[in-house]
Amino acid sequence: MRSILVSSWGKPWRTGGEFSWKKVEYRLKETSRTSRSSLPVLVEHIKPERIVIVVLDTVAEKICSNYQKLCKMVEERYLDFIQKELEILEEVKVIVTPGVGSFELKFKGEMMDFYHYVFFELSRELIGLEKQCEVHLDITHGLNFAPVLLHEALENILGILAYTKNIKFSIYNAEPFIPETKEKSSLTIHRIEYRDVYPSLSPNRLGGKGEARLLAVREEHKKDTEFCKKVSKAAKVSNSKELNAFLSGIVNGLPLCLYTFCPNTQRLEKKLFLAVKEWRKNVEIRSGEVERKVSFTPDFTNCVKLWLAAKSFNIERKEAVVLEELEERMRKIFGYERSKEALISHELAKIKEEAEAKKKELNKWKLLRTLFSGERISPSFDRRNFLAHAGLEYNVTELRYS
Amino acid sequence: MRSILVSSWGKPWRTGGEFSWKKVEYRLKETSRTSRSSLPVLVEHIKPERIVIVVLDTVAEKICSNYQKLCKMVEERYLDFIQKELEILEEVKVIVTPGVGSFELKFKGEMMDFYHYVFFELSRELIGLEKQCEVHLDITHGLNFAPVLLHEALENILGILAYTKNIKFSIYNAEPFIPETKEKSSLTIHRIEYRDVYPSLSPNRLGGKGEARLLAVREEHKKDTEFCKKVSKAAKVSNSKELNAFLSGIVNGLPLCLYTFCPNTQRLEKKLFLAVKEWRKNVEIRSGEVERKVSFTPDFTNCVKLWLAAKSFNIERKEAVVLEELEERMRKIFGYERSKEALISHELAKIKEEAEAKKKELNKWKLLRTLFSGERISPSFDRRNFLAHAGLEYNVTELRYS
Repeated sequence: MRSILVSSWGKPWRTGGEFSWKKVEYRLKETSRTSRSSLPVLVEHIKPERIVIVVLDTVAEKICSNYQKLCKMVEERYLDFIQKELEILEEVKVIVTPGVGSFELKFKGEMMDFYHYVFFELSRELIGLEKQCEVHLDITHGLNFAPVLLHEALENILGILAYTKNIKFSIYNAEPFIPETKEKSSLTIHRIEYRDVYPSLSPNRLGGKGEARLLAVREEHKKDTEFCKKVSKAAKVSNSKELNAFLSGIVNGLPLCLYTFCPNTQRLEKKLFLAVKEWRKNVEIRSGEVERKVSFTPDFTNCVKLWLAAKSFNIERKEAVVLEELEERMRKIFGYERSKEALISHELAKIKEEAEAKKKELNKWKLLRTLFSGERISPSFDRRNFLAHAGLEYNVTELRYS
Repeated sequence: MRSILVSSWGKPWRTGGEFSWKKVEYRLKETSRTSRSSLPVLVEHIKPERIVIVVLDTVAEKICSNYQKLCKMVEERYLDFIQKELEILEEVKVIVTPGVGSFELKFKGEMMDFYHYVFFELSRELIGLEKQCEVHLDITHGLNFAPVLLHEALENILGILAYTKNIKFSIYNAEPFIPETKEKSSLTIHRIEYRDVYPSLSPNRLGGKGEARLLAVREEHKKDTEFCKKVSKAAKVSNSKELNAFLSGIVNGLPLCLYTFCPNTQRLEKKLFLAVKEWRKNVEIRSGEVERKVSFTPDFTNCVKLWLAAKSFNIERKEAVVLEELEERMRKIFGYERSKEALISHELAKIKEEAEAKKKELNKWKLLRTLFSGERISPSFDRRNFLAHAGLEYNVTELRYS
């Protein structure tokens, strides 16, 4: 996939059924279309390979027997609007995200569920981007907190993908429709941002001081200890230390850490899916009310980030790596972060030189310290030394010639 | 200043004068207030030392003789609303930002002017934050693109300040007011985000391939070559190479670059002020129309970022730096970026050791290469080597004992 258009949408219709989005002329450069939405013009102008609309479950006007059905109902109403009213023939993916507040129905839960849920869903879409790609975000119809958090999620996802992809990111917004003006409106769609994405990943460690969990029971239900235990068990991350080491490998530029602690992406993805399933299972639907008893934790999104990184870096866990592979992969992953890349290749070059010189001794694994005997080398492991040598510290790194 | 509350606001009143923001009960934990805005509850709950409201000039309903007066009129209307309707007694700063679109008046210009302008104005506010501080953003009343771009600006500003400050960042959003519901509404204000800010600065170089300019003439006026020349001259950045070297010092962790190329913050600030003045001078007001003939460039914001960095790092340009000062400052600036900090202190420790050993020779400046003769040292300058040694490369760094 080379291009994707993501839109944040509010509610195009009133409760009675009448449309609240008026038909106006939307205009983007030479393209213009009279429509209830900016979508048709954007689709025509950008010609994205994929279209994703992010909406909120809070637009639901009646309850269903379970949450999945409620989301399905919302999704279908939007698809109907997109096909019949907007006459969009392209395939459109509608992501129904969890909102909070009193509307036709009352939705109880954590507002940040929106962020975590959309982060996961969008990550699964965007992992399919090619090396040269474009991401377009339209916030014209976004309401309230949704475009802000969607934008933040996108920024974070794209920051991770930018380690290995060249991404152009655009944001669009149409001039607002003013109901008071009588004249026939024409709303210009502005590209309010257009830029290259630089690689970035925040050093958010999993678990803080305690154990990492992907879900948390909401305050109101914490008294139900049985329930808490059950959720806690289902949401536990058993390998958070290793995941943190992988994170450190990216943030601090430690090539062997990346290979040693690279998570199994299939297993991690399954873990995330199970958490979403557990979360969904604990949405209770009562008369006029939808309550999410469980919420996603920041560690849920931290795990999604590492899943994205591991999957897009295209490496797999190894105990030992061929030096040339290490050089080549690190150039690709840290090519934009010049000082990291320079330090790594400097350290690898030193090791390579030594390996060539001491070929004969290297028919079995040798600690680097025993090879570099001539230099001022710390006789014991030191954390800062480890970081200053891109993780290729002489007391913990072994070398072999094969 | 230890805490600041920033809010993004739309228009609280209709053109006739009637309020469009209804009086409802806003509730945040134990605090509640019936008001037309979330502001009173937030002020009571957070007790911020400073309050900033970001509004758009497009709410203006009649023209003034110049743009500054138009902004002043908008500012006063909001202050009046804040004092009389919301009964806020604390001092409030209203930032009137440039918007685009057809409202009571028609506003022509670049939409991104909003981002660049608010970036500068907020930077000037936030530079006053203490080492331990809190930043609160309320997006309840934000409309359209404004909260998205305001949030992005804040994220970028705080990322730079986080090199030297511990910042807690919160975002608030009230449940939306639904006009259709008949019952007395109570809107809960949710803290939708709460987190520590990590240091970050994108490697956006000034000028790209050409010369850096803080302002650009908009497409429609490019034919007026005299005008273009005038603006180009006023907006020229003469020291962009040095500014880029300073940027590289931060992004790549090069301590001597920071000192060698640290910009004069007063001069840079003056340059930015002059650009804003020139931009404002070129806003034309005609009957029913406000046109900005000139727009801010991304380099304007790139310069603001470097101004923020230089000012908050609390360093000043020096040709030579005492080693202990270098160690101490770098620990403060790169304390969060552990691998950068480890590499820098590793390199400085090596130099210190050598300096102690060769004290007698060091009564005048000596190139590091001539001191470290024992090691494998490149005989000529090499860019990657420079980066791999935190900029303390042996062919370009000199040492003296005093």
